[in-house]
Amino acid sequence: MSPREDLRSPSIFIGKQGQDIISFGSGQPDLPPPVEVTEGLSVRFDLRYGLIQGEYELRKALSHEYPDSTADNFIITNGASEALDIIFRAMGRGKVLLPRPYYYSYPNIVSFAGMEAVYTNLKDGRIDMDDFNKKIKDCKAVLINSPSNPTGRIERIETLKEIEEITRNKNIYVVSDEVYKDLIYERENYHIKGNHVITVNSFSKTYAMCGVRVGYLWSSDQEIVNKAIEIKTHTSMNTSLIAQDMALNAMQAPKTYIKEQQKIWLSRRDIIFKGLCDLGFNLWKPEGAFYVFPEFTSPEKLVWDLYTKYKVIIYLGDWFGTHDRIRLSYALDSKEIEEGLNRMETALKKEKYT
Amino acid sequence: MSPREDLRSPSIFIGKQGQDIISFGSGQPDLPPPVEVTEGLSVRFDLRYGLIQGEYELRKALSHEYPDSTADNFIITNGASEALDIIFRAMGRGKVLLPRPYYYSYPNIVSFAGMEAVYTNLKDGRIDMDDFNKKIKDCKAVLINSPSNPTGRIERIETLKEIEEITRNKNIYVVSDEVYKDLIYERENYHIKGNHVITVNSFSKTYAMCGVRVGYLWSSDQEIVNKAIEIKTHTSMNTSLIAQDMALNAMQAPKTYIKEQQKIWLSRRDIIFKGLCDLGFNLWKPEGAFYVFPEFTSPEKLVWDLYTKYKVIIYLGDWFGTHDRIRLSYALDSKEIEEGLNRMETALKKEKYT
Repeated sequence: MSPREDLRSPSIFIGKQGQDIISFGSGQPDLPPPVEVTEGLSVRFDLRYGLIQGEYELRKALSHEYPDSTADNFIITNGASEALDIIFRAMGRGKVLLPRPYYYSYPNIVSFAGMEAVYTNLKDGRIDMDDFNKKIKDCKAVLINSPSNPTGRIERIETLKEIEEITRNKNIYVVSDEVYKDLIYERENYHIKGNHVITVNSFSKTYAMCGVRVGYLWSSDQEIVNKAIEIKTHTSMNTSLIAQDMALNAMQAPKTYIKEQQKIWLSRRDIIFKGLCDLGFNLWKPEGAFYVFPEFTSPEKLVWDLYTKYKVIIYLGDWFGTHDRIRLSYALDSKEIEEGLNRMETALKKEKYT
Repeated sequence: MSPREDLRSPSIFIGKQGQDIISFGSGQPDLPPPVEVTEGLSVRFDLRYGLIQGEYELRKALSHEYPDSTADNFIITNGASEALDIIFRAMGRGKVLLPRPYYYSYPNIVSFAGMEAVYTNLKDGRIDMDDFNKKIKDCKAVLINSPSNPTGRIERIETLKEIEEITRNKNIYVVSDEVYKDLIYERENYHIKGNHVITVNSFSKTYAMCGVRVGYLWSSDQEIVNKAIEIKTHTSMNTSLIAQDMALNAMQAPKTYIKEQQKIWLSRRDIIFKGLCDLGFNLWKPEGAFYVFPEFTSPEKLVWDLYTKYKVIIYLGDWFGTHDRIRLSYALDSKEIEEGLNRMETALKKEKYT
């Protein structure tokens, strides 16, 4: 094993857990789902195809969460991943603007769809409107992810409104990946609106049910919704019916469930943010999601040392399009976060980093 | 509503059922799944991500059904549709040979993957090796579907062996869609083999659980399997865990379940085949799957009349790449098949067809 070969992608760390490993890698809640998801779930015996677009009851329930929407505006998908995959495939050829650093699947999803990714670099972890305006001109779409994985930042409401208007005027699609919308510490989520907007969301993070794979897209542009349904007809058909039943069950959970989760995430954020500051890292204070993205001058060596000598998993900034940074997820117990920080402290003292 | 506009695709008939409609449209078993699928299903409370490739226990169980295979050779997918989608995306650019008539999603799946479909016309419902040999030369892959939807034919074992050898020698992938492998009336399924073969299969037809969406691909070419896993990592992640649990449960059903199903399908086949022959249709006797594909000179008018005046749904041959034919699925009760045939008899007498 050598760092250069093995650190090409996060797959080296997939499935690595237990055995005294502290993993700041995985981007999923460790907390349990609400009991409503499984309790009282009645497994249907009629297992014939469902509607490609998704079960009506679930889409109807979702429509109550989105102003001026109907069940027709939604497609239920195999997680937010499939929602992104089919929406870009529905657009045809063209350029997609991606803020960088980005969630590592974005460039792949865009290129798999036959589209071309172009990038605008974030400034201080947020969209730089000067650069954005230069790059957006000849794009067919832009992908916004606020709160962001990997930066943990949220965009300013003014920025989101400005993007909303610029893209509306230029007839450019906005794909707004809001999977962390219920994990914002600073303010309410601002939901980008307009007929040119496709919102992507998921039950995975809000209800801690990543493995069930239920996400959705929402748009008032019925033409793009219909195109995406047409694609899904050929590439996967309906999202698993029982998975959709579990998602509908999740929506019965009391709102206090989400509030309680937010408290836990907030206290974890405070622990890891303070801990990393104390260790001398330079980083943005997370405002949403559950990631920190500190600077570090020799990130490959640190990732490698921590994994091979200290049983700590952290991710490399390169996987998110950015050198000289590392990503840590704090989706783990406070005690584990503290133990992980202690091991990092030891590593930083013992090993040599330039 | 006008036939020309509305008969562009089968979507006109999706969700059309009940209200005295007899549907020969839908390609899914109407019979119940084995009780094992739902009885004793324990819904897990830990709903975190599973392995992208699929749950080990399910892949292990499948490996016992495929000679010389291990769990590593399988990917569990959102139905056979996703298996086809990711395998062609994993191949890169190039031509794919499709026997025509074809299952209507094939050309779309191939073009969505950025590949180019070329066609070899079936002769008497089977692959014509003269034409096949001309067309296969500059292809990267060929897609075989035996038993076939829509023809109901199975390829001769000699043909399958010949294809196996030609493609092996020329380094051409064979994607063998065997979703109807347990619905053959004439002989055992012949499973195309070789390191260049990707077998696609599903729990949907064998276990009457289409809506659960569990399929898989199998190949001993670990390189193409790994590429497909990489694509699935970005486009949908793991197949729903609970759906995979149901698939594993289905495999506990006694083999008599499949035998009993075959008997029912056989008796239905005999009813519809004789009935259509008696009505004067020219058609192949189905050897597998649950479709008949008779010739008819004015299929659009017949499809339209039957739907609008007689409440009978049949599909247009054009959707499967072939003029002057219609497709009927016999995935419905014998009594309904007979009632449908009666209505067709009335239509043929009353309406004018040239």
